[in-house]
Amino acid sequence: MNGLMMNWQLTLDKILEHGNRLYPHKKITTMQPDGSLFRYTYADLYRRAKRMAKALVKLGVAPGDRVATFAWNDYQHLELYYAIPGAAAVCHTLNIRLFPDQLAYIVNHAEDKIVFVDGTLIPLYQKVASETPDVQHHVLFNAPREAKDALPNVLFYEDLIDDSDEDFAWLCTDENLAMGLCYTSGTTGEPKGALYSHRSMFLHTIGENAANALGVRESDVVLPVVPQFHAMAWGLPYACVASGADIVMPGPHLRPQPLADLIANERVTIAAGVPTIWNALYYELKQNPRDISCLRALVVGGSAMPRSLIEAYESQLGVNVIHAWGMTEMSPLGTVSIPLKAHEALGVDEIGRELPWDGKTMGELQVRGPWIIRQYFKREPTRDYITEDGWFRTGDVVTITPDGYMTITDRTKDLVKSGGEWISTVELESAIIGHPKVLEAAVIAIPDEKWSERPMACVVRTQEGWDLTDEELQEYLGERVAKFWVPERIVFIDEVPKTSVGKFDKKVLRRQFSEGQLG
Amino acid sequence: MNGLMMNWQLTLDKILEHGNRLYPHKKITTMQPDGSLFRYTYADLYRRAKRMAKALVKLGVAPGDRVATFAWNDYQHLELYYAIPGAAAVCHTLNIRLFPDQLAYIVNHAEDKIVFVDGTLIPLYQKVASETPDVQHHVLFNAPREAKDALPNVLFYEDLIDDSDEDFAWLCTDENLAMGLCYTSGTTGEPKGALYSHRSMFLHTIGENAANALGVRESDVVLPVVPQFHAMAWGLPYACVASGADIVMPGPHLRPQPLADLIANERVTIAAGVPTIWNALYYELKQNPRDISCLRALVVGGSAMPRSLIEAYESQLGVNVIHAWGMTEMSPLGTVSIPLKAHEALGVDEIGRELPWDGKTMGELQVRGPWIIRQYFKREPTRDYITEDGWFRTGDVVTITPDGYMTITDRTKDLVKSGGEWISTVELESAIIGHPKVLEAAVIAIPDEKWSERPMACVVRTQEGWDLTDEELQEYLGERVAKFWVPERIVFIDEVPKTSVGKFDKKVLRRQFSEGQLG
Repeated sequence: MNGLMMNWQLTLDKILEHGNRLYPHKKITTMQPDGSLFRYTYADLYRRAKRMAKALVKLGVAPGDRVATFAWNDYQHLELYYAIPGAAAVCHTLNIRLFPDQLAYIVNHAEDKIVFVDGTLIPLYQKVASETPDVQHHVLFNAPREAKDALPNVLFYEDLIDDSDEDFAWLCTDENLAMGLCYTSGTTGEPKGALYSHRSMFLHTIGENAANALGVRESDVVLPVVPQFHAMAWGLPYACVASGADIVMPGPHLRPQPLADLIANERVTIAAGVPTIWNALYYELKQNPRDISCLRALVVGGSAMPRSLIEAYESQLGVNVIHAWGMTEMSPLGTVSIPLKAHEALGVDEIGRELPWDGKTMGELQVRGPWIIRQYFKREPTRDYITEDGWFRTGDVVTITPDGYMTITDRTKDLVKSGGEWISTVELESAIIGHPKVLEAAVIAIPDEKWSERPMACVVRTQEGWDLTDEELQEYLGERVAKFWVPERIVFIDEVPKTSVGKFDKKVLRRQFSEGQLG
Repeated sequence: MNGLMMNWQLTLDKILEHGNRLYPHKKITTMQPDGSLFRYTYADLYRRAKRMAKALVKLGVAPGDRVATFAWNDYQHLELYYAIPGAAAVCHTLNIRLFPDQLAYIVNHAEDKIVFVDGTLIPLYQKVASETPDVQHHVLFNAPREAKDALPNVLFYEDLIDDSDEDFAWLCTDENLAMGLCYTSGTTGEPKGALYSHRSMFLHTIGENAANALGVRESDVVLPVVPQFHAMAWGLPYACVASGADIVMPGPHLRPQPLADLIANERVTIAAGVPTIWNALYYELKQNPRDISCLRALVVGGSAMPRSLIEAYESQLGVNVIHAWGMTEMSPLGTVSIPLKAHEALGVDEIGRELPWDGKTMGELQVRGPWIIRQYFKREPTRDYITEDGWFRTGDVVTITPDGYMTITDRTKDLVKSGGEWISTVELESAIIGHPKVLEAAVIAIPDEKWSERPMACVVRTQEGWDLTDEELQEYLGERVAKFWVPERIVFIDEVPKTSVGKFDKKVLRRQFSEGQLG
């Protein structure tokens, strides 16, 4: 027997309608390419999103069509986050950090019909456009009229807005409809697309706004530095409007000085971004202090923020750091690390240490839930990423404490299996990095007849440490890790190759060293 | 095109599994009938709920069957909130404040198969049991063995737990399944049942836990004084477990002294109940002060808490009062009144006054959403409560400010339409109550040939005000309300008749006075 409750679909138009109804005067502030601040309200966002949705339909966008964006965090991109799904189309965010050939692959694979391009990014996008002949329109914003020939079939964003009107009924009437598409910039294989539904993103939004998670409130002023062009800006464009928070968009200004100004001047209460950004901001704030007492949470994710930086923010700047973890395939929020009540009596630097870690048991993390993908776009679900019983394999190797605190120790594919025992490359790299003469280190597995696999260390020496030798490093490691972890083979390289998003690209190292071509 | 996200059903077993997985050591404390405190953990709740769910299936409960409870707020009732829906059956909470004939009607209408009865309530329930022959089992808890003949077909709760085990897979595999049933104690017509689904209650739970709403957190200690036997204890049994909060259950102890002790001794951070309870608690705390600095929110609903009492709590006791509103048909939370950021600079007693109220426009409130009923149990949806376009008619007359703050001014059926103009009986009653010689007043509509309807005032005089006359009161009102609001007919009565839950029963007054039988 079913319940007798209303059939109310979890679609994203509801979030914008709610924001416009309850909080029409709340503010959205964008730092424009020229550095000036553009301000408008939720009511403006609502009206323009409706106009744009109607314009898309007029352009021939049909339900399910993919419409791409190539843009910074600004009010236009925010409008597109609502207008495209509101037209029952799929908002496909293109990662501006990818290489042109990757982008062209993705646009063609997604069969994007229209691509919205920020004027400041035209030079970056031109190489993509020449390889994606099936795109019907390129719509420019933050661009002068003269840019009309910079890409094929150019339209101007503001023309579409002007020629449209607000008499439009949202077309997203079913919560299972696709609303967003985001490709992972995976370090192996071709990029793979996560195809979000209205339902999954709606549930992600209210999950994110739970008091136990980020808990965005009406009284907050949120600065999403995390880009809208990747991982949906951690869902903040929806979480903010759902809760009525003021929004501050940095546009292309990701340097520490403008970010610090925005935080101080706009009285930001929650700022979200990757550790690199917050590392730079920390030094800016130390050198040029500002009143950032407004900031109640610095949310960090994307990669691990060093403990020392977290402690520096908390003890020296009085800023509460909240570490999150997620994946594109998870919409993207997976975990938010908030101290438990039982931790209240503990100092910051004691957290973890005083907990009853079970600690050593490592395993692959598999996840399940309403905002996790069940398969990639236009790819069969295969056992390498979906288990037989329906769990998504993250590829992360983790430990979890009895209290539910998770530590990512490795990626499965980066583990080394030596003589039946696992060696964590992440831990081994940490140990190597600890040597004062080492700047960077990447450990990969190399085939070994006796042990099946052995770790090999690719090490970048500091300028002063040019004289570091294999033996010296092995001796150092021997005192710090298990004997069988110490790599027999150490190569000194000039630089660890990196992916477009700045992660170590071990694929390149493997290609280089698995065939014995030692440097 | 649909999204490619996991099919993860929003069912309540997920909440208990989450609570048990993340917070197995969090505490549930119950004040038992004898006044002693019984303490156990989420892990205990989980194990016993599983055992009870399995026991229900063994007793022959099939998916969709209704299983009723007649109980206070305690750990057993909490277990039933999970065990019954976990067996895919419907947890039907019986309101212990109703009269036996109403209860018998409800049990028979619901076709309850099993009724769980708290030992302290057996005398109340005996009259019901004699009129409900189709109930197969009465399961007792908090009851001695000697009670086995007090009701037909008695089983003992702890026997069911003992004879069962935890090897049980939850049966609620579809989010649309019915999970709960609650009848409204309406002042007109027969009681009507709201049939909640897993999906609606799950969404209600995460809505309630939004930082903008009640925002229950893991660090909270929650005291639900609002009864589980009506309106699902405002969803707190689910909201608490979903967030990992400690739970304090008062059992039958609803007097101010034990409640004050529980708040102070258990360090309660959120307490939820009706104004009557908090009124009594206020005087207790004034007379016998306790350290209640732990309390971060006193949540109030059910009826309007007087402004003076809110101010007294906030200014004298330092307690933040959060006023909520809802209905059984709304799962029940409808609104939670939280100051906006724009109010931060205002003193408590200024809120509202300084807002740009549009103010005077009254209208019937209609609601829509994923946790609102679409029809009553075993009743056709009729236009008197569901509009043609699918909105639920609350019967409340409200004003809403531009900021979205709602004030309930009346019930539609209590409005008086006089000469084409509306007269608010609530406002008129407030004006009458303002007279120093008046103790209580109820205004009803009576038919009038000229004006169609006219208000009639039923007034209870104070002991000292025995000499109040019609003329004196009319003169007083003439200076305070519009001329046409002043009632020509005023009757002095000994007492305003009340319903089982303490609300004015105007139905009785109408019956008495619509036929001209003036007192």
